[in-house]
Amino acid sequence: MNSKKYNMWLQYQPITDTKMIEQYQYFFTKIGVLSEGLQVQAALDELHAAVPQMLDAKFTVSNDALNSTIVIGNRNDLARFLDSEQQAKLADMNDEAFLIASNQEQLIIAGNSDVAVLYGVHHLLRLVQLNEDIAQLSVVEQPKNQFRMLNQWDNFDGSIERGYSGQSIFYQHNQFVEDKTRIKDYARFLSSVGINAISINNVNVWEEETYFITKKYLPEIQEIAGIFRVYGITLYLSINFGSPVTIGDLDTADPLDQSVQNWWKEKAKEIYDYIPDFGGFVVKADSENRPGPFTYERDHADGSNMLAKALEPFQGKVIWRCFVYNHLQDWRDRTTDRARAAYDHFKPLDGRFHENVILQVKNGPMDFQVREPASPLIGAMPNTNQMIEFQVAQEYTGQQIDLCYLIPQWKEILAFDTHIKGTGTTIEEIVAGNIHPYKYSGVAAVSNIGDDENWTGNTLAQANLYGYGRLIWNPSLLSEQIAEEWIKQTFGSKEEVLNTIEDMLLNAWGIYENYTAPLGVGWMVTPGVHYGPNIDGYEYSKWGTYHFADRDGIGVDRTKETGTGYTEQYQEPHRTIYNDLDQVPDELLLFFHHVPYKYTLKSGKTVIQHIYDAHFKGYEQVEGLIEQWENLRNYVDNERFANVQDRLERQLDNAKEWRDQINTYFYRKSGIGDQHGRTIY
Amino acid sequence: MNSKKYNMWLQYQPITDTKMIEQYQYFFTKIGVLSEGLQVQAALDELHAAVPQMLDAKFTVSNDALNSTIVIGNRNDLARFLDSEQQAKLADMNDEAFLIASNQEQLIIAGNSDVAVLYGVHHLLRLVQLNEDIAQLSVVEQPKNQFRMLNQWDNFDGSIERGYSGQSIFYQHNQFVEDKTRIKDYARFLSSVGINAISINNVNVWEEETYFITKKYLPEIQEIAGIFRVYGITLYLSINFGSPVTIGDLDTADPLDQSVQNWWKEKAKEIYDYIPDFGGFVVKADSENRPGPFTYERDHADGSNMLAKALEPFQGKVIWRCFVYNHLQDWRDRTTDRARAAYDHFKPLDGRFHENVILQVKNGPMDFQVREPASPLIGAMPNTNQMIEFQVAQEYTGQQIDLCYLIPQWKEILAFDTHIKGTGTTIEEIVAGNIHPYKYSGVAAVSNIGDDENWTGNTLAQANLYGYGRLIWNPSLLSEQIAEEWIKQTFGSKEEVLNTIEDMLLNAWGIYENYTAPLGVGWMVTPGVHYGPNIDGYEYSKWGTYHFADRDGIGVDRTKETGTGYTEQYQEPHRTIYNDLDQVPDELLLFFHHVPYKYTLKSGKTVIQHIYDAHFKGYEQVEGLIEQWENLRNYVDNERFANVQDRLERQLDNAKEWRDQINTYFYRKSGIGDQHGRTIY
Repeated sequence: MNSKKYNMWLQYQPITDTKMIEQYQYFFTKIGVLSEGLQVQAALDELHAAVPQMLDAKFTVSNDALNSTIVIGNRNDLARFLDSEQQAKLADMNDEAFLIASNQEQLIIAGNSDVAVLYGVHHLLRLVQLNEDIAQLSVVEQPKNQFRMLNQWDNFDGSIERGYSGQSIFYQHNQFVEDKTRIKDYARFLSSVGINAISINNVNVWEEETYFITKKYLPEIQEIAGIFRVYGITLYLSINFGSPVTIGDLDTADPLDQSVQNWWKEKAKEIYDYIPDFGGFVVKADSENRPGPFTYERDHADGSNMLAKALEPFQGKVIWRCFVYNHLQDWRDRTTDRARAAYDHFKPLDGRFHENVILQVKNGPMDFQVREPASPLIGAMPNTNQMIEFQVAQEYTGQQIDLCYLIPQWKEILAFDTHIKGTGTTIEEIVAGNIHPYKYSGVAAVSNIGDDENWTGNTLAQANLYGYGRLIWNPSLLSEQIAEEWIKQTFGSKEEVLNTIEDMLLNAWGIYENYTAPLGVGWMVTPGVHYGPNIDGYEYSKWGTYHFADRDGIGVDRTKETGTGYTEQYQEPHRTIYNDLDQVPDELLLFFHHVPYKYTLKSGKTVIQHIYDAHFKGYEQVEGLIEQWENLRNYVDNERFANVQDRLERQLDNAKEWRDQINTYFYRKSGIGDQHGRTIY
Repeated sequence: MNSKKYNMWLQYQPITDTKMIEQYQYFFTKIGVLSEGLQVQAALDELHAAVPQMLDAKFTVSNDALNSTIVIGNRNDLARFLDSEQQAKLADMNDEAFLIASNQEQLIIAGNSDVAVLYGVHHLLRLVQLNEDIAQLSVVEQPKNQFRMLNQWDNFDGSIERGYSGQSIFYQHNQFVEDKTRIKDYARFLSSVGINAISINNVNVWEEETYFITKKYLPEIQEIAGIFRVYGITLYLSINFGSPVTIGDLDTADPLDQSVQNWWKEKAKEIYDYIPDFGGFVVKADSENRPGPFTYERDHADGSNMLAKALEPFQGKVIWRCFVYNHLQDWRDRTTDRARAAYDHFKPLDGRFHENVILQVKNGPMDFQVREPASPLIGAMPNTNQMIEFQVAQEYTGQQIDLCYLIPQWKEILAFDTHIKGTGTTIEEIVAGNIHPYKYSGVAAVSNIGDDENWTGNTLAQANLYGYGRLIWNPSLLSEQIAEEWIKQTFGSKEEVLNTIEDMLLNAWGIYENYTAPLGVGWMVTPGVHYGPNIDGYEYSKWGTYHFADRDGIGVDRTKETGTGYTEQYQEPHRTIYNDLDQVPDELLLFFHHVPYKYTLKSGKTVIQHIYDAHFKGYEQVEGLIEQWENLRNYVDNERFANVQDRLERQLDNAKEWRDQINTYFYRKSGIGDQHGRTIY
């Protein structure tokens, strides 16, 4: 496949900027390649793919660096081309750092490693696609986060849990796909935005997937690991904690049992025989009915450490997810609080985890809602490696039907100052490993791709995958910058296109929030599928996901004094701010407090009027998105235009249901009419 | 399989009644068989199965009628054993009538047909199992209803739509089952209660099932028809109205198109080549997204008549279901009313249907809810054959987890006096063909069996299958009588067992109604699965299934003056009674009226207090059922005891959720507390 929708942001469209084209054509003439590593070869391949398309020109390749217009190689191989200042700069940075330096005659890309060279080449290609001047570059970049990971929730049968873009590109009908071209292309796309780790199977590891770590499937996984290796991406597997019982012949998976420990040690050795640079295990244990150490009255530290010791001789890691651990709540009991669960479970274990264990903590205390406070667990365990987990897949944010550009949400979370070690202890710095002495840390996210030709169902959802990679490489990038980069590479640089799509993307999260669950309360979705409104859908469930709306008011009281005390899990000043009705920000009001419908927000509106206004407005805003997109009819190729148009129409239907059901529900319950007399049923 | 749970009501337990055993042993010594038909042989087989078990004795079989203690045969073959009065009685009755007459020396079973002999033998065996005196019998029986049908909603993949007892006994993995023993046994059970027609595939006819009427599958269906034939049961198939397009090479299925008509004529001929006594087609057309005549701007008469003409040369029938025809409602629009749909669609077509078309009308205007008024369509078309449709499968009535003995519900519906032709125009008489000059009429029902060893999931749900057959054979049987018959045959005659289970069965429907949706409003179930409470589950759906609860009141206004006018579909006095808030019965109040929570019922309670009381009571009643059953621990075999015990425990969990969610929902909405201060959340 080589369609525009397939190529996402690696379109490599012909350069039309007459000012720049000569400069580019000059540089991309003679390429000197001084290193031989796999990833450097991948960089060269990328140049071969890009340059002829962009510049309608070919280049020569040699190891004659002196006479090359572009020289690429790792720092060692390129040492004599770097001045001492450049050498020092690179030496001061991490393994994935690269340097690009140019003058009118030559451009050098040096990496601290082979994969860093690939990152540098992608950086250069991006500059060209953005029509930047490359004749006087002095760029030094390194990723801020050590782990930049994607989790595929792909099942062996080809389905994808929370997948909204077709079937798996890895599996179909309990077999590995034969043609692995898409896996290779996926690796290309990921490396172009700096992703360096991937787990390729669902964290819910079902029967057959349990055998992924056996000879039955390791040869195929070895092949896939080889594909990702070329792009500097380390392969991980989600494993079933109960494996020693399921695939071994043990009758226990107790992590303190010697035979279980030995089983995992042997298993690790076997895996590393196939994949010497295997990343390690991703584990969802004792959560949502998955097996885990609790079965044997052990705790998370016991469970993860046992695996960690098995992987340690091979530098493998255990990525241990911190998700719902008491989801079997009773809706009648208002003292239990799912929001508390991760912190309550893990915080007391701080210091007990092995140094190659990393806890993967979701960005919020619930589950990827359109609006949640940041998880108080992040940074709360100074002696335990942590990663934050985002969800690129739009499970609760429109499922790639509705437009929802998530970069602003993630930025807000990263910018959250936990105050765990005083002002400036942002989540961004914590997961970058700059606050606590983490050995490993970083960011993971659930991927949003499938085998739809455009990868992400809604073409505009490609922006979230792109932005995820870019943001966690460099969290100081603005949402606007990332949007612009993505739009220009994906759709070209026409001002009309750029301005329109950028505006659509930047407003999308707010629009989605407007017409869905209000003021941080979350969860008013259709159970199971998580798409579309269902106000009471999770109200009487076991999942700990309640809004407690009655005829007088709504919201979850999580205060210290009268509620679940969840606010106590935060440091000051958040503890006080969230706990105090007068200080809590409007958008999180109902997450922390139960208030009457006539309670007045900081915005000056009552809660009920806010609900009405936001929902009428959200719907109108979607109408606006449709108009905006319509204006691009002549600027975007038919296929991508029609794809987005179709999704926007479906979004409008969805927004209508949300608007009318939410408004009707609260009108029927509160009996308070809309101040503006609009139609409520 | 030959377990107690498998054998349902044909246990044939050893007779222990010392008073009767000698008499029975005398009669079951020499059996004279005067007819040779298949069904008479089946009757003899049943005697062979039953007698040795019940009486620990064998019998001889001959055609020496004079010296036989029991003589069986059809009226022609048995003529010389019947006196003129008996002859006259039988001659006056329908083909399925039988006569049993005995004196101290000989017992005669004569049938108006071979299958009638089988019915007579089952009648006799029932009497023996009930320990009745058989020495002075003078029984003449005929079924009141002509069609006594079951619809299997079995899919070819082995699943059963709305099946709660395992997988299909007919199909698995898109193949017919190889071992057809269970099909034969099912036929035995059905014939023992007089069922004479069966459709063996789901009314929703999917892709592969469309090919049932082709050479690909007709040989297997021929075999199954042969099994049912032995038991006097005629086989029908559900067909896909779009077949000429799907399996033919036509580009239309327009019923007025000559080529389509010819296609069906050829098709009918082909089917009858395989199955000369094939019953005909069951058709769900233009309902819930199934294809039908509407596609071609034709109506139901056009569609069904076209099929009827194709089947006519072979005496085949078309059974045309009258279900939801405008399910794509908008919940915002209170003028549309699903309850009106069947009547509005079909009533104007009266007189236009061919004489071998039968309309199959659900018992209520909605869909097998725990409480609905009778459908006003039944009897409203004097010139159109009609059957009523019940649902033995407990889709909305506990799914064979919760106990719900449905005979009282069906009796109430059959007893409903439509007044269509004055007083006494009951549904019972209408479907029996005694009111309008129907050529064909009767009763159909969705079956509740699957391949669970006990057939019906909950052992006590066997009573609904048994009772369905018995009731439609003889609608004057009381719910109590049917329960007693079933209990004695199934569990034996011990008084403790009889009294306890009878009490459980007779209260079950009321109990289920108590803890589920109140006062006829219906539909507060989990969408899709239809089990468990979900008060707003269908409130904002497209299905026309709303309760319109707000903070002030609840119910659907179907009155003439201010509502949908549905009440106008009834004759007087129902039209006035249902329309008038002062006259409408409490149990249907919310089906017909929207009232404030403080509206006072005829019971003297307010609506809201009724809701609280009924739900608290319903839960307590389930606790009572558990206690009652516990008392039978020593009287019922372990397997069946444990099965029912397990179901009752699950029912209690369910009742708890219903109680608490319903009460909480209405408390939160109304703000009105329980007068007795019980716990509401």
